[in-house]
Amino acid sequence: MPKLIDHAQRRIEIAEALWRVVSRDGVAAASVRDVAAEAGISAGSLRHVFATKEELLAFSMELIYERVAARVRTHATKRDPLRRAEAVLAEVLPLDDNRRIEMHVNLALVTEAAAHPALARAGVQAHEGLRELCRGVLADLADHGLVAASRDLDAESMHLHALVDGLAVHLLLGHNDRPTRVRRLIVDHLASLR
Amino acid sequence: MPKLIDHAQRRIEIAEALWRVVSRDGVAAASVRDVAAEAGISAGSLRHVFATKEELLAFSMELIYERVAARVRTHATKRDPLRRAEAVLAEVLPLDDNRRIEMHVNLALVTEAAAHPALARAGVQAHEGLRELCRGVLADLADHGLVAASRDLDAESMHLHALVDGLAVHLLLGHNDRPTRVRRLIVDHLASLR
Repeated sequence: MPKLIDHAQRRIEIAEALWRVVSRDGVAAASVRDVAAEAGISAGSLRHVFATKEELLAFSMELIYERVAARVRTHATKRDPLRRAEAVLAEVLPLDDNRRIEMHVNLALVTEAAAHPALARAGVQAHEGLRELCRGVLADLADHGLVAASRDLDAESMHLHALVDGLAVHLLLGHNDRPTRVRRLIVDHLASLR
Repeated sequence: MPKLIDHAQRRIEIAEALWRVVSRDGVAAASVRDVAAEAGISAGSLRHVFATKEELLAFSMELIYERVAARVRTHATKRDPLRRAEAVLAEVLPLDDNRRIEMHVNLALVTEAAAHPALARAGVQAHEGLRELCRGVLADLADHGLVAASRDLDAESMHLHALVDGLAVHLLLGHNDRPTRVRRLIVDHLASLR
């Protein structure tokens, strides 16, 4: 394997190890030493790849957003506008183990951002990215005549974004909202915009 | 001061010191030693009041919920049903420094709950408490003829709860939604239920 690819792969493996540690033990437990052990390398090797813990945390966050964006793109070919909207929004909900770990780690890291400027920057970018995603979903529905002309798309994007993020946090932490009900609620909300 | 009151007051002072540490440095930095230093006592004195860190974290969370509940009760006397609803919901939004610290600490602790069963329990109780609050707000509006009979109050409670929590997280972390717009959005949503 060429050295550059090897290095990129190593960064991803370490970020995934961080996800597992944060997901299992909380962000307070995610020391460089613990993450290195989880990744099966020495703390020295980890520091060779990520010079600071902040760099590791920021990369781990950004990797989550890249993966979500890649999954979202796979739905562009869906024909039915409402199904396309629903499928895109489902990618940012913790509906399986994979998305649950992403969500949990993201929430933990965003919450730590007060103490880490690089995390704060990545968190704001993700926030703005998700707002744009919601705006794009609504614009797509509007293009297909599925949003009443009287609706303010800015306010509706803000509403949809908050709704989706709130439902995501509830699925993750609330333990009492079933995924089918959550998806139903989003579909009903989108349908109500007509 | 009687000894019991003194003890209760001490617990509150330590919990508030934990809030400041978490709010400023993140939950990862909130060691018993740091919280004790912030409270101006020794780590040994802190351990005399809270035998474990988990006990301290859980009490600190519960204290947030008690304060929110006390503020919510003050709005019961408001005459106008929509204004009453809005005032109650504003109590769980980070609209000033006080509520911002509560929200931030709560989110940080809830996010750490995977590793701390006592926090998970307190987090679930808070989640259910806020769902009940939303249901109560909607039932109050419905009693005043402000919710269409065709609306499913269960689904609407879930929607309002997610909306409010999502907006709260965005106000806290998003840096781009103005409080006036957030309040307007909630009022518009409540008004749309008619």
